[in-house]
Amino acid sequence: MNNRIDKLAELFESFPGIGRRQARRFVYYLLHKDQGYINELVAGIQNVKAEINQCSECYRFFPKNGSLVCEVCTQAKDSKQLAIVEKDADFENLHKTHVYDGKYFILGGFINANEKKRSYARVDTLIKRIERDTASGALDEVIFALSISPEAEHTRIRLYTMLRDEFPNLTFSTLGRGLSTGTELEYSDTETLKYAFKSRIQQ
Amino acid sequence: MNNRIDKLAELFESFPGIGRRQARRFVYYLLHKDQGYINELVAGIQNVKAEINQCSECYRFFPKNGSLVCEVCTQAKDSKQLAIVEKDADFENLHKTHVYDGKYFILGGFINANEKKRSYARVDTLIKRIERDTASGALDEVIFALSISPEAEHTRIRLYTMLRDEFPNLTFSTLGRGLSTGTELEYSDTETLKYAFKSRIQQ
Amino acid sequence: MNNRIDKLAELFESFPGIGRRQARRFVYYLLHKDQGYINELVAGIQNVKAEINQCSECYRFFPKNGSLVCEVCTQAKDSKQLAIVEKDADFENLHKTHVYDGKYFILGGFINANEKKRSYARVDTLIKRIERDTASGALDEVIFALSISPEAEHTRIRLYTMLRDEFPNLTFSTLGRGLSTGTELEYSDTETLKYAFKSRIQQ
Amino acid sequence: MNNRIDKLAELFESFPGIGRRQARRFVYYLLHKDQGYINELVAGIQNVKAEINQCSECYRFFPKNGSLVCEVCTQAKDSKQLAIVEKDADFENLHKTHVYDGKYFILGGFINANEKKRSYARVDTLIKRIERDTASGALDEVIFALSISPEAEHTRIRLYTMLRDEFPNLTFSTLGRGLSTGTELEYSDTETLKYAFKSRIQQ
Repeated sequence: MNNRIDKLAELFESFPGIGRRQARRFVYYLLHKDQGYINELVAGIQNVKAEINQCSECYRFFPKNGSLVCEVCTQAKDSKQLAIVEKDADFENLHKTHVYDGKYFILGGFINANEKKRSYARVDTLIKRIERDTASGALDEVIFALSISPEAEHTRIRLYTMLRDEFPNLTFSTLGRGLSTGTELEYSDTETLKYAFKSRIQQ
Repeated sequence: MNNRIDKLAELFESFPGIGRRQARRFVYYLLHKDQGYINELVAGIQNVKAEINQCSECYRFFPKNGSLVCEVCTQAKDSKQLAIVEKDADFENLHKTHVYDGKYFILGGFINANEKKRSYARVDTLIKRIERDTASGALDEVIFALSISPEAEHTRIRLYTMLRDEFPNLTFSTLGRGLSTGTELEYSDTETLKYAFKSRIQQ
Repeated sequence: MNNRIDKLAELFESFPGIGRRQARRFVYYLLHKDQGYINELVAGIQNVKAEINQCSECYRFFPKNGSLVCEVCTQAKDSKQLAIVEKDADFENLHKTHVYDGKYFILGGFINANEKKRSYARVDTLIKRIERDTASGALDEVIFALSISPEAEHTRIRLYTMLRDEFPNLTFSTLGRGLSTGTELEYSDTETLKYAFKSRIQQ
Repeated sequence: MNNRIDKLAELFESFPGIGRRQARRFVYYLLHKDQGYINELVAGIQNVKAEINQCSECYRFFPKNGSLVCEVCTQAKDSKQLAIVEKDADFENLHKTHVYDGKYFILGGFINANEKKRSYARVDTLIKRIERDTASGALDEVIFALSISPEAEHTRIRLYTMLRDEFPNLTFSTLGRGLSTGTELEYSDTETLKYAFKSRIQQ
């Protein structure tokens, strides 16, 4: 009956983290907004798709600027480091720390342990890129900058296994492990404590 | 820099219950969808505004059907009961129980104790409607169907005070209070227990 | 190795709602307290068992006072109402509202739908008490003052079924249902709304 | 009125993490237990105080064994490392990883930034111990094995500042920082990411 309301709520329900109630709340929120806001939102959604490119090198999303390659890749062209991250949000968080100024590659997903499950990881593209950059001497080190989780670990191990034999002169590294901000020693797991102990920092 | 991404994330951040991270996640979600989905979403947003009316009687949102009055009001035209609810979501939840077949009025907000705070409650419209319906003998009972909260209670008391002197022949009632589904007696507050005791049901 | 610490932690782990970590934290808390506190705690635990009786009428725990019957039962001796509650905590919460001044019976547990599961409900004792009080004309109304949950509902229905045929002149009632403090109409379930509507209160 | 019940509930309320309701639930739990359990609990509480010593070296709690010094200190007597932890629970968690076989010192609390706030940290005892062990050549490295929190950091910095000038030949280290188990890169703070990057592990 409230067909339009139901249909739009259904579309919002597919948004990440949004359930039935919140989707409906979104629709009522929009119904209370004026036409100006609606036009702005609709334009924003159309534009983001139309005016954002995916970088042909690192596959992150960036504003169209006439180039196929994003500004981060361009600025890092002389670097011989490549950091592999899972998604754009990881890239953003790492990039804003200014602790790394090398190149990036956004994998797009994890490699699933269950091979029947569809994977969005751009593995072939990654391998081709590493082939090209190693051949031209433009790559020394591949850094796995992934989260710590079973899927991330599995992805890291599979990629490392695939790459180390093909590229014996490359250095492979992974982000250091230890105590993170807010960690309580009392609750830390053995893995974390082992790493934290072995990699202790001299003051 | 990611101007379009930032701008759209900002628009999503104004959605109810959505913070910065989730707003950004929405944008990346949309960037991964195909143009077909984007078109559907944009059409859905435009249409919901264009094809939904606000009923001139009860002020709920309903699909345009050529009438200024929604089908619920039309079906309840012979009822002499009027249930006042705060918002559409309350109407929907109450309406689907099929326990009430009278008329509705969606207040649109609460009456604030702090009078400087802007109120969205359609108080004047409500009073005019009650005037009209009482004059024509089409209204016997006004039911306050609001949540139990300080703002709702304040609203109920203010409305009752405004209306009872003006309409001395009207019956005013409020939804029964007592134990609700899942209540643990051990944790119930005194108010709830008092009501529950006084309104006990003979088996 | 830390045998005493482990053993005491194990005893604390059986306390309601206490897991392994918190049980251990209790032991270290006690190790840091002085002997005076330890003596006070130990005396408190011994005494509560030694100086608390269970009332022979209502089965609640009360301080020994030379009587087999607690002061609440004594004060309510002329009442012809009997409220059945599940446990002491329910009695305490209801009693402090001062909305009921009749007699109590603490059932001690629920009647389980799964009959193989052990029940702590004093059903036979309850029936004997009702027999005695009905015979002497000291009982008119039995009030089921239980929580709203599947086990409580099942218990109520089973008790009512057992008692109504045996005691056809008794009135049986249950606490009123409706909106409780803090309820949001938007989220209330159909059951609660039905009751709330049917038992609405005239202002 | 329920004086004994109230008094014991009050004692339980002082237990770490226990509020009024849970304290009361403990009392009713004990009232339902038989005398055998009560005796066991009371004995356990008395014994833990009577049969647990605090090690004169590291200040952890251990079962009395005729020695003033605990078995961990005894086993580590040839080690030249000293790990400073805040409390017994930290010691336990670190000790069970088997990644460190040196000596321990349980500080007993943090050094407060607000000096008016009482501190339970055994700073003087720690300094005397380090003096004694450095003089006899039995100590090379002091490891700060504390949680990552503002209080822990403040404590670490204050201790390091106190000790480094007095003991110029000692090495001071702190547990390595980086990504811990379950970390999501997307949500990691800058500090953690900086450490994780700088201390990356070659595969």
